[in-house]
Amino acid sequence: MEETLYTIGEVAKLANVSIQTLRYYDQIGLFKPAYVDPETNYRYYKDLQLYHLDLIKSLKYIGTSLEDIKKVQQLKREELLQFMNEQEEIIEAQLARLREIQQNVVHAKKRIQKQLNYPAFGEVVIRQEEEMRIIQAAAKNLTPLDLLNASYSELKRIVEAEEGVINNSYGAIISHQPYSHIDEITYTKIFTPILTDKRISTISTEIEVSKIPAARYACIYYIFSPEVYFPNLKKLMDYVTDHNFRAVGDIYELFTSSNYSPNEHEYIVEMKIRIAD
Amino acid sequence: MEETLYTIGEVAKLANVSIQTLRYYDQIGLFKPAYVDPETNYRYYKDLQLYHLDLIKSLKYIGTSLEDIKKVQQLKREELLQFMNEQEEIIEAQLARLREIQQNVVHAKKRIQKQLNYPAFGEVVIRQEEEMRIIQAAAKNLTPLDLLNASYSELKRIVEAEEGVINNSYGAIISHQPYSHIDEITYTKIFTPILTDKRISTISTEIEVSKIPAARYACIYYIFSPEVYFPNLKKLMDYVTDHNFRAVGDIYELFTSSNYSPNEHEYIVEMKIRIAD
Repeated sequence: MEETLYTIGEVAKLANVSIQTLRYYDQIGLFKPAYVDPETNYRYYKDLQLYHLDLIKSLKYIGTSLEDIKKVQQLKREELLQFMNEQEEIIEAQLARLREIQQNVVHAKKRIQKQLNYPAFGEVVIRQEEEMRIIQAAAKNLTPLDLLNASYSELKRIVEAEEGVINNSYGAIISHQPYSHIDEITYTKIFTPILTDKRISTISTEIEVSKIPAARYACIYYIFSPEVYFPNLKKLMDYVTDHNFRAVGDIYELFTSSNYSPNEHEYIVEMKIRIAD
Repeated sequence: MEETLYTIGEVAKLANVSIQTLRYYDQIGLFKPAYVDPETNYRYYKDLQLYHLDLIKSLKYIGTSLEDIKKVQQLKREELLQFMNEQEEIIEAQLARLREIQQNVVHAKKRIQKQLNYPAFGEVVIRQEEEMRIIQAAAKNLTPLDLLNASYSELKRIVEAEEGVINNSYGAIISHQPYSHIDEITYTKIFTPILTDKRISTISTEIEVSKIPAARYACIYYIFSPEVYFPNLKKLMDYVTDHNFRAVGDIYELFTSSNYSPNEHEYIVEMKIRIAD
């Protein structure tokens, strides 16, 4: 490859970069012309230099900043390998984060689709439900009438720290008993679903990871208000009894917002009782 | 869930956001307090509002801008599903781009590792080589003495457009003949490797995608200079003849820089001849 000199305009065309970029690279000392005419200040580049524009481009492509590219230019080959290993790790981490976000979006879609397909409010239906991983805390005598968004504050903080994001469903568990009035009901646990399959460290005896098993459930859905809470619960329990289903375990309640609007505070409640096959 | 009012400090703690963020969300109309005391200007929030902070957080997490979150808040549920579908596509595209970058980094690592393990310069070795996808162009009478970086300008432009990045190896092909002097050599093709397995559209009769097959090759490596080019080529060809190997096809040359430094222009040349098994 013989000695040839190009003007900045020729380099721009040959290397598919703009003249402005080449001037900037010169200013910051990233890629300097081989020769500058002292009278005209015109820049001239050797053919051999073109290769280094390719290297700069390829490093930019993998996300290396111009400042870091200047450092990479000083590296020996063994150090370059180390640098590439680091880049690979960074990309792995970015991929992992994106996959998590993807799981979240898929989950959000499922939730919206489920809401779009809700059966008529106030009607009991039998549904095969997927397993739901949850993180749960002792409910400390909370009742349906004094459960607050604020009650979930600690649970949410943990999920947010572990998963990077909280999801938008909140739940509570009551034991299955022949209730005759809302005043008799006290939650045993409150919970929020976990979206990813990430391992979450055990936190304390009061807060733990658990799951609502995949199974058939008798379910009822309704728009929350204190007045309709008990009639819906009663209807669900009576349905199970009347149809001779054998109820298994607790009663689960799950709250989700019916929309993303900050001015409407409408919650859809899903109550469900697992039934034996 | 009953009516409760929180101060901005309480909301900050309960929802794990900063007071500054809450003030900012108020200013841009994203999340406004339910009540502002007209005398003190203190902000008060309802418990029910906390839920919407979770929605804002979850949208931020999947990469939605605050401006877009304001729009999402106005969406009906069917539109929300559409929005989530779009987010999923965006994430898919980001994942695809990252995987491409990953392929590039892995390839760069392989190249560096290969360079680190080069046999002694000027010695012929027999190596099993992986298949290399290339894009090649007619060499238009180029010879080893007038091949320039600039000669690859068009090939690089195509690869850059198709793959988003060019890699840093350049090659040339000569037919296998009993040369006795460098002046007898004219390249038939010049090429550059393609890193990804992306399908590249056929460009013209002169530029085409091809491959250097996986096979055993007799190889020689050296630091390029016009003086040593022919002695190395001759040594390689003689080795094949002397060892009674049967040569298959053309002779390939591949140039890579020995480092990323813009001040050293040292190229390593790899020449190889495929030999029959």
